[in-house]
Amino acid sequence: MNYPKKVRLVEVGPRDGLQNEAKPVSVEAKVALIDALTAAGHSAVEAGSFVSPKWVPQMANTDRVMAEIKRKPGVGYPVLVPNKQGMNGAVEAHCEEIAIFTAASEAFCRKNTNCSIDESFERFAPVLEAAQKHGMKVRGYVSTVIACPYDGKVAPAKVAEVSERLFRMGCYEVSLGDTTGVGTPAECVTMIDAVAARVPREKLAAHFHDTYGQSLANIMAVMERGIAVFDTSVAGLGGCPYAKGASGNVGTEDVLYLLNGLGIDHGVDIDAVARAGRAICAELGREPASKVAQALKAKAA
Amino acid sequence: MNYPKKVRLVEVGPRDGLQNEAKPVSVEAKVALIDALTAAGHSAVEAGSFVSPKWVPQMANTDRVMAEIKRKPGVGYPVLVPNKQGMNGAVEAHCEEIAIFTAASEAFCRKNTNCSIDESFERFAPVLEAAQKHGMKVRGYVSTVIACPYDGKVAPAKVAEVSERLFRMGCYEVSLGDTTGVGTPAECVTMIDAVAARVPREKLAAHFHDTYGQSLANIMAVMERGIAVFDTSVAGLGGCPYAKGASGNVGTEDVLYLLNGLGIDHGVDIDAVARAGRAICAELGREPASKVAQALKAKAA
Repeated sequence: MNYPKKVRLVEVGPRDGLQNEAKPVSVEAKVALIDALTAAGHSAVEAGSFVSPKWVPQMANTDRVMAEIKRKPGVGYPVLVPNKQGMNGAVEAHCEEIAIFTAASEAFCRKNTNCSIDESFERFAPVLEAAQKHGMKVRGYVSTVIACPYDGKVAPAKVAEVSERLFRMGCYEVSLGDTTGVGTPAECVTMIDAVAARVPREKLAAHFHDTYGQSLANIMAVMERGIAVFDTSVAGLGGCPYAKGASGNVGTEDVLYLLNGLGIDHGVDIDAVARAGRAICAELGREPASKVAQALKAKAA
Repeated sequence: MNYPKKVRLVEVGPRDGLQNEAKPVSVEAKVALIDALTAAGHSAVEAGSFVSPKWVPQMANTDRVMAEIKRKPGVGYPVLVPNKQGMNGAVEAHCEEIAIFTAASEAFCRKNTNCSIDESFERFAPVLEAAQKHGMKVRGYVSTVIACPYDGKVAPAKVAEVSERLFRMGCYEVSLGDTTGVGTPAECVTMIDAVAARVPREKLAAHFHDTYGQSLANIMAVMERGIAVFDTSVAGLGGCPYAKGASGNVGTEDVLYLLNGLGIDHGVDIDAVARAGRAICAELGREPASKVAQALKAKAA
């Protein structure tokens, strides 16, 4: 088994996680969560998004969140930005990093952002221009890298094409998202290899959802293919909008437990993350979806 | 990735699963479950145990279960037998296969069976003699192959020693159980390699618990080391007695989904298993613990 010596996690719970929770969360609770996650050792925490509160009310207070968190030196706090208007919000909030998102499936892109993939890139142009002007880092997301909830299987070549466009446009990293969590290890490896033919492997991240419980198996498989950055969500926050009642993002605790067992360096304190997860789950009135979080909670009780 | 072409699953839900559920289940519900699992294509279903109902009331009706199931030709229905007395029950119930169990940790063996590991082998002697006399197959279980809930880490050499004793004694297969589910892929591979130095790999099965969500990653890792038999539990039945509220056995549906994605043959219909799981979960008044079962249920709703 040939794994990376060191892995970097991008904690997406406060954005991708909370965005998919039914209950909106206060500024105070979000700030406490983000600060607890950076105190636990995370070097990247997705802090929110500047999208219309009409579409995503859970993220309406991102400007206040960005104003109140303790910004820790060396830590990235990317915020999701869909267009020029969102970018204005990110600039006003003094964000140092943004994330832009498109999809590898036309049907998903249209349902999710109301435009074609090509049009999503047209929207990115002024956003990237402003990012360059303000010295902001830009991370790119590709959704539906394995399958689309509307159109079925997605061709790895299409994922590679979209990823390359994001990379050439200036994204320092491209995160490949199995949005519906249907992928299994062989498919993920095929997809990663296709993308890595066009974007350097060290510029790729993998973003798995645990809808079918395959995330850790997929992470193992793509680590063997040189992928060393993973998006994870504390407590496994974030349900699956395509299968209500199913699991969402892979739990940070589950990934940390796996990495600890493999002796892979990551710099994050699993117990501190689990405590942060218990606090936000209490706020949401839900149980953690991460199995490690459940086991640690059971042991703590 | 070098995986086996074919994998055999041993469905342990009706025994290892139900034994760890708080609510006892009627004979009718157990029979319906077992028959649904064999109809789904399973070639081995652990049907119950002949242990004292004082210790395990959930298994008190195993004789009636064995009398009422439709025994499908070619399918194994192992029942757990702790001693000569249990063996009498198995013989009376016309069982064709039994399972015996010991541990790789002295402390666990003593807590679980009230005897030392050596004494457990002394108890097996008359059981195996009777098995031979009645032409019954014998499967062996080793518990705590990674860690003991009382004594911590377990040495792979100890697991190998106990496994070899079971194999030499006449067990056609030895199932290696990570009872507390704490193992991660690297540890599991080390343990498997130690055992495989003394027992042929094709005579070994792996039995994982999903307490820390590592089961599928572990299965992937040990499949690469030539292991091709796995114990799984429909719906992920069976909690964790060492961390109340945590997950139990790895879900059959989760393993089937992984194997389907890898193109590995197994002969079991995942949707039929999921339906059987929903039925027994309704009986128990609980949600399935298997993430695939949850996702399929959400999609079916």
